[in-house]
Amino acid sequence: MIKTGYIQFHPVLGEIDGNIQRINPFIDQTKDADLIVLPELISTGYNFESRHYALNCAEEINNSRFVEFLISKSKEHNAYIVAGINEKNGDELFNTSVLIGPNGYLGKYQKIHLFMNEKDIFKTGSVGVPVFDVEFGKLSMLICFDYYFPELWRMTGLNGADIICHPSNLLTQNAHKTVPAQAFMNKVFIITSNRIGTENDLTFNGTSFIVNPDAEVILKASVDKEEVGMIEIDPQLARNKFVTSRNHAFNDRHPGLYKGLV
Amino acid sequence: MIKTGYIQFHPVLGEIDGNIQRINPFIDQTKDADLIVLPELISTGYNFESRHYALNCAEEINNSRFVEFLISKSKEHNAYIVAGINEKNGDELFNTSVLIGPNGYLGKYQKIHLFMNEKDIFKTGSVGVPVFDVEFGKLSMLICFDYYFPELWRMTGLNGADIICHPSNLLTQNAHKTVPAQAFMNKVFIITSNRIGTENDLTFNGTSFIVNPDAEVILKASVDKEEVGMIEIDPQLARNKFVTSRNHAFNDRHPGLYKGLV
Repeated sequence: MIKTGYIQFHPVLGEIDGNIQRINPFIDQTKDADLIVLPELISTGYNFESRHYALNCAEEINNSRFVEFLISKSKEHNAYIVAGINEKNGDELFNTSVLIGPNGYLGKYQKIHLFMNEKDIFKTGSVGVPVFDVEFGKLSMLICFDYYFPELWRMTGLNGADIICHPSNLLTQNAHKTVPAQAFMNKVFIITSNRIGTENDLTFNGTSFIVNPDAEVILKASVDKEEVGMIEIDPQLARNKFVTSRNHAFNDRHPGLYKGLV
Repeated sequence: MIKTGYIQFHPVLGEIDGNIQRINPFIDQTKDADLIVLPELISTGYNFESRHYALNCAEEINNSRFVEFLISKSKEHNAYIVAGINEKNGDELFNTSVLIGPNGYLGKYQKIHLFMNEKDIFKTGSVGVPVFDVEFGKLSMLICFDYYFPELWRMTGLNGADIICHPSNLLTQNAHKTVPAQAFMNKVFIITSNRIGTENDLTFNGTSFIVNPDAEVILKASVDKEEVGMIEIDPQLARNKFVTSRNHAFNDRHPGLYKGLV
C-alpha cells in the first residue's frame, strides 16, 4: 500500500516565486505521502493574455526555480511529486508535467491535446507518454483535456502504467464523465488534480479526484477550496487486467479489427 | 426528431417461436417509433449449455423465422428494428445483431469481443462495424461486452455513426461505467437494450438505457421488469463534433502520436 493524493491549489497568474511560497505548506501537509499530484501549470497559472506573457513566465526544466523547489521537497519528504509547469524549450513552449523523485528530476510529459487558446501558446507534446518505473509501481502522466481522448489512456495502459497522474485546470465537470471509464477500461488508478480560482473569464472548478481500476471515485475534493486529499491505495491492483476469469482488458483486444484509428 | 427506444425482454432459452409470439405485442407497443432496439440473442436466450445446443437453435439470416418476423413488423410499423440473433453461417456460429428496415434486411454486425463461455460457442465477428445510412441518420451496432473496448466505439464514431444500437445481455452494471463516456467522447447516441431474467447461474439485470452525446442518460429501465422505453431524440446533434469553439472530438486527435494501439 502507498499513500497518495492531490493538492488542489489556487495559483496567482505569473507569480512563480509567490506560488512556490504558497505551495510549500501544502506540500508539507503531504509529508507522509509516497506520491503527490499538483495541478497543471501550477507555478504560473493558466490564462495567459498572450504567448508573449506566457513566454515571460516560462521556465526551462533544467533551469527552473519551481523544479528546484520540487526536487528539494521530494528529497525532504522522500516522496514522488508530479506537477504542471509552463515549459520553455528552445523557442517553444510546452504545457508540461514533470515527475520528481527523491533523487531528482525523472522525466516529463508534454500535453498532446491542447484546449482552446492553448493552441496559440503551446506546441503539441513531442515526448509521447513515457512510463516511469519507481519502487511501488509504474507511473505516467497525462494533462487535463487529454481526458477526452481514449487513445492516450489506452496507449499508457498498454505500456504498463499502474497509476496515471492527471494534472488539470478543468473548467467543467466533463472529466468526471470520462476519467472513471478510462481507469476501468485500462484497470489503472488515476489521480486528477485540479485547481480552483478565477483568472479573467475562466473559473476552475476543483473537484480533484482519485479513481481506482473499478471506476470507483475513492476520494474527491470540493469545488472551490484549496485542499489536500490523501488516501492509501495498492498499485498492485492495477497489475490484474482480468475482467472475468476468461476476459482480459488487454488480451481480449482485437487490434487487427480496429480500422482507421491511427 | 425521431422516436426511438428499447424493448427490455425476457426470452425463454431455445424457444424461438414462443419468443417471437411474446415479443410481438411489445413491438406493437412501439408502433410510433422510428427505431427500436431489442437485446442480444433475443430469439433464443443466452446461456446455452453447449455449442451443440446453440447450434440446434441457431438460424441463418436468410432462412430465419425471427428475421422474417422482424421484417414483417418493420414493414407494418414503418420502423427500423435492431435485434440480436444466434447466427448460423456455414458451420460457424456468430453472436450477431441485425438491422431491419421497412424494405427488409439491411445488414448485420457480428460481436467482436466475446464474453466468458461465448468463446466456446461463437466465432469472433468478421464483418467489421458497418455503418448504415437511413433517412434520419447513420446507424451502427455493437453488442454487450464490446462496451469495454473504446477502440470499437471510436472506430464507429469516426465512420460516421450518429446512433449506435447496443443489444446486450448484461449481468452487471459495468456497462453504465463506460457507455456514457463512449457516447461523450464520440458525440453519438447509444441505445443499450438489455434483457432480464435468470438462466441457470446467470441473472441479467435490465436497466436498458439511452445516452445522448453529452453523456446524459436520458432514459433508463428497471432492473427486473419487461418494459418498453421510448423517447424523442434529434440524431442531427451527433453531427456536431465540436467540444468547444476550438476543439473537435475527431479533428483534435493526433493519430500519429498514438503508438501501439493497432
